[in-house]
Amino acid sequence: MLVVMKNDATEEQIKAISDVIRNMGYTPEPVPGVQRQAICVLGNKSRVDSSHIEVMDGVKEVIHVTKPFKLVSRESKEKSIITVGNNKFGSITLPVIAGPCAVEDRVKFLEIADAVKHEGATMLRGGAFKPRTSPYAFQGLGEEGLKILAEARGKTGLPVCTEVMDTDTLAMVSEYADVVQIGARNMHNFSLLRKVGRQKKPILLKRGLSATINELLMAAEYILSEGNWNVILCERGIRTFEEQTRNTLDLSAIPIIHELSHLPIIVDPSHACGRWDSVPPLARAAVATGADGLLIEVHMNPLEALSDGPQSLKPEKFSQLMKDIKNIAASIGRKI
Amino acid sequence: MLVVMKNDATEEQIKAISDVIRNMGYTPEPVPGVQRQAICVLGNKSRVDSSHIEVMDGVKEVIHVTKPFKLVSRESKEKSIITVGNNKFGSITLPVIAGPCAVEDRVKFLEIADAVKHEGATMLRGGAFKPRTSPYAFQGLGEEGLKILAEARGKTGLPVCTEVMDTDTLAMVSEYADVVQIGARNMHNFSLLRKVGRQKKPILLKRGLSATINELLMAAEYILSEGNWNVILCERGIRTFEEQTRNTLDLSAIPIIHELSHLPIIVDPSHACGRWDSVPPLARAAVATGADGLLIEVHMNPLEALSDGPQSLKPEKFSQLMKDIKNIAASIGRKI
Amino acid sequence: MLVVMKNDATEEQIKAISDVIRNMGYTPEPVPGVQRQAICVLGNKSRVDSSHIEVMDGVKEVIHVTKPFKLVSRESKEKSIITVGNNKFGSITLPVIAGPCAVEDRVKFLEIADAVKHEGATMLRGGAFKPRTSPYAFQGLGEEGLKILAEARGKTGLPVCTEVMDTDTLAMVSEYADVVQIGARNMHNFSLLRKVGRQKKPILLKRGLSATINELLMAAEYILSEGNWNVILCERGIRTFEEQTRNTLDLSAIPIIHELSHLPIIVDPSHACGRWDSVPPLARAAVATGADGLLIEVHMNPLEALSDGPQSLKPEKFSQLMKDIKNIAASIGRKI
Amino acid sequence: MLVVMKNDATEEQIKAISDVIRNMGYTPEPVPGVQRQAICVLGNKSRVDSSHIEVMDGVKEVIHVTKPFKLVSRESKEKSIITVGNNKFGSITLPVIAGPCAVEDRVKFLEIADAVKHEGATMLRGGAFKPRTSPYAFQGLGEEGLKILAEARGKTGLPVCTEVMDTDTLAMVSEYADVVQIGARNMHNFSLLRKVGRQKKPILLKRGLSATINELLMAAEYILSEGNWNVILCERGIRTFEEQTRNTLDLSAIPIIHELSHLPIIVDPSHACGRWDSVPPLARAAVATGADGLLIEVHMNPLEALSDGPQSLKPEKFSQLMKDIKNIAASIGRKI
Repeated sequence: MLVVMKNDATEEQIKAISDVIRNMGYTPEPVPGVQRQAICVLGNKSRVDSSHIEVMDGVKEVIHVTKPFKLVSRESKEKSIITVGNNKFGSITLPVIAGPCAVEDRVKFLEIADAVKHEGATMLRGGAFKPRTSPYAFQGLGEEGLKILAEARGKTGLPVCTEVMDTDTLAMVSEYADVVQIGARNMHNFSLLRKVGRQKKPILLKRGLSATINELLMAAEYILSEGNWNVILCERGIRTFEEQTRNTLDLSAIPIIHELSHLPIIVDPSHACGRWDSVPPLARAAVATGADGLLIEVHMNPLEALSDGPQSLKPEKFSQLMKDIKNIAASIGRKI
Repeated sequence: MLVVMKNDATEEQIKAISDVIRNMGYTPEPVPGVQRQAICVLGNKSRVDSSHIEVMDGVKEVIHVTKPFKLVSRESKEKSIITVGNNKFGSITLPVIAGPCAVEDRVKFLEIADAVKHEGATMLRGGAFKPRTSPYAFQGLGEEGLKILAEARGKTGLPVCTEVMDTDTLAMVSEYADVVQIGARNMHNFSLLRKVGRQKKPILLKRGLSATINELLMAAEYILSEGNWNVILCERGIRTFEEQTRNTLDLSAIPIIHELSHLPIIVDPSHACGRWDSVPPLARAAVATGADGLLIEVHMNPLEALSDGPQSLKPEKFSQLMKDIKNIAASIGRKI
Repeated sequence: MLVVMKNDATEEQIKAISDVIRNMGYTPEPVPGVQRQAICVLGNKSRVDSSHIEVMDGVKEVIHVTKPFKLVSRESKEKSIITVGNNKFGSITLPVIAGPCAVEDRVKFLEIADAVKHEGATMLRGGAFKPRTSPYAFQGLGEEGLKILAEARGKTGLPVCTEVMDTDTLAMVSEYADVVQIGARNMHNFSLLRKVGRQKKPILLKRGLSATINELLMAAEYILSEGNWNVILCERGIRTFEEQTRNTLDLSAIPIIHELSHLPIIVDPSHACGRWDSVPPLARAAVATGADGLLIEVHMNPLEALSDGPQSLKPEKFSQLMKDIKNIAASIGRKI
Repeated sequence: MLVVMKNDATEEQIKAISDVIRNMGYTPEPVPGVQRQAICVLGNKSRVDSSHIEVMDGVKEVIHVTKPFKLVSRESKEKSIITVGNNKFGSITLPVIAGPCAVEDRVKFLEIADAVKHEGATMLRGGAFKPRTSPYAFQGLGEEGLKILAEARGKTGLPVCTEVMDTDTLAMVSEYADVVQIGARNMHNFSLLRKVGRQKKPILLKRGLSATINELLMAAEYILSEGNWNVILCERGIRTFEEQTRNTLDLSAIPIIHELSHLPIIVDPSHACGRWDSVPPLARAAVATGADGLLIEVHMNPLEALSDGPQSLKPEKFSQLMKDIKNIAASIGRKI
């Protein structure tokens, strides 16, 4: 349930309502918003009797939320714009996050960072902690990788996004990163979701390998329920029987999430298809569908990449992709 | 194996090579083409020894086809453009096929036909024979529906596309239709594939509910192997665990099929998602990805539709969709 | 809706009720049964007002069927036992259908037929018309294969089961076969379902590659609605992302179908897993779950099989499998 | 690569070989075993040149492992039997772990514990930390729940199995539990896998919601590679399009894992199907397939359960299930 306050509602009125909610055995959660103030009622299993709240001073209306997710729903907030440096996820201008799958080497990473910035990327990506199917595969450079990311940020002026794998290293990752990524394999790691909800850095939350749209929104709800409303969702393909691609990109997730939630959703075509030649057409498709940004893997020499080389673009291919998606964005009234 | 002939190869030279292939126990299949003449060798299980063919008169080169599909492969032909009236599938101009799921009523169908023509549709669709999950659901008007389609073609000047469900009614459907559709549930109906391969009308072949891209191409191979090279492929979503949509549209099929095959591929976003509000964004995505056309369900009053109402657009929504995809097409150098 | 008659209801009473149903605009369909006589009401989209039927002479009770399937539902009939020679599908004794994927050669087939009969198989299988992904793969011997099947029946005394691929060859297949199989790729071939519903031979209906349990039951409903109630369902695995097996056997289909329908359901572990070493454990599992029979691929020399060799058992492995499943069956009060 | 030592190999010989491996840039990992001593070589990307190791003193043979998993493979060890109290996972006697999804209440849990022990369960289960899709759902009693589990162990003499959700609570869970469970949602939580690999308690590792068999084995490899070889795998259904069940139980995983790995694999039919009426037939199927144990949800009053009530059996149904699976086990030469 949401209690929406009048524009001129006072702090005392909000406090009075929160006290009533607490007395009813529920938890009041203030919902941030420029245009309206609201209080979300958490902890109820069924419809709450709101008759005596509706008549309290300062209350504009009471909305009964019918979805299992509350804070992430469009009923709780019209639209979120998540700001990271010059990037505004959810605005008409689409951020493009680019870089290699993993930070492998200082010199090479700085070179890629320069290259993607030159082509118009607005944020850098690169994994320092890598979740790998095999314990014997390259696991990332750890804090050394984070330092390289920070150096690249210093040199390019672009914010950096990198993945956190567990609660133990969250404080360290959060210190270096501008956006903390929760990978697909951790979308259901509820302990980690709660902890990233308690720190301040914006979160990039990837859809799980076989997660439904509802489950992705519920995972985001975990983060918002702990107080961090700066969540960027990411569609990255789901697992199907098709063998030509690593996963199947589910672009219908974009209009559906835009209808259900106020959170921005971006698309990672690189992990979705797992082959570089399909990345540019899927990136164009994502922009045309209405995605709020892109995450693209770029590597100076994909054949030498320690992970995910087959799905990485060379800088010149990325350059062409940027031109193409600028045209697509313009044609639907958006910008890159 | 493909035997590619020189531009000035004579009929006698081609006949001589065909005889040699037959003597080796294989079947020679002439491959149509404006720019080059070629003979496809069918019936071999493993690599054919081509040494004595390579040195025969008129032979330019011999190509060993490494895929399970031969006639549909890019190795056999560079690119196919399928012409139906003013529609050229595979050209830079994208046909848009529109209309209701089923032909339900003469007056209503003529009304929709007028409406979609007015908004720029270049071909009409409507089912006269409907494959339905339940034997008690509306099964289509049969030949009466085909006559209504023909009347709509007469009034609008647009060609019509309609589905054939079995070999018994193929002659009848083929008589009325400009394009004969094989539905998703019949993609593996090999007897039907063979028979449509033996008649002249172009075929719209939809991907099966859980068919891989390879299987779709092999189904097309059945049709081409019987002599009908006018096959238009159609991606219409595959079955996954996601519950918000009827199917999951697999747009990566477009670049992959363009790489593997010379056949054009169009997209049906209506059946893919099963909800009208996701049709426009997925239609834009399809065009941005490089689809060679669209198939869109339109109904004057979706709530009254006897089948697939929830995924049908009203004419005014279709009008907006046409404007949007024209912009997208222009931005990638194509036209609607 | 079902109108259940009293045990002593007369033909006149049944006719009177059928007339009333027809006057209401619906179709009365007599439901066969030893223990009770009933009339199924077809053609209604919503609940039928049954008040004046309930009070007619001879009526015991009126049951409103709530599922989309009617004739196949447990509400219409308690349990079906389909008899084919000495096989009784749905009884406590489980038929075992065995043989090669395809009839490839007269001498070899007669040899396998003898071998599987010796090990306890109660019906023979073998394809004369083979649905193959590739048009260039072995397509079966056609009528010659059917004649070999008939000869094997003569020599062994066992009935034979073989697949029909289309309506054109149905009359021919139906003439030779004791059980006519509808393969997984034709489960949604509604024209074929209707036609096999109009002939007399029992049908073995396989679940489609990605069909839901509901869709399988609706496909059976097509057959029953045309008058053929002798339908044996077959679970043969569904398509998933798992790569070690050809399909994933869904054994939960057995208890669920037993709860929803009166039709027997057997299991084909060979097609489900696609590897012979998993066939015996899955066959044991099927019997333990409560399957009403098994379909097992056996080949004298799997390495030489023209189709599906990797999933075929040699006779000696089949011999062991028969011993094992006899023990399992005994442990749950059933027999092989 | 595995270096298998002779039975009379000395500690010095093993040390000498380990030093050589280290000098080659790889990591030597001793492989535990009663019947043979072996050293696994980790860290190589391609085939290692073993010529000079083969001739060293004490070496019996060198085995080149061809699978991506090494320590879990049958090549490294013939068979593992994991002992927990009187339970021997991997032996001919099948442990049955039973109890409610979550520990909800002390009195009720002790009651269930008594009931399932009385029916023959050999280990207790119950979640104290519950991964839930919604942050507002019951999350478990935490340490209080662990204490109740310990009390139940004291009263019944049965060991207890409970889930760990994160590295923060691992020490606490590990202190109370006899078997530490990694749930399906954490199968790809590599940080947690590593940490449970560094403690001593046996691990019950559940297959991820859409994990392949290979990925499950690689997840186990993470645990073994840290030194904990006491891993029990658990098949609990994978995500498919079927709507009648929560997941689709993949029983072919059992023979395939038995062929690929020395680790025992048990089955959880309750989570697989999500409906109590399908649990007994799937439990019988699991035993018939060759599963090394079962995990069954039992609740005194499923309708009141705070989680997963619909899939829980009442004690009387569990009693019947135990009788049934004893018969099945006996028929394949195993025991419950």
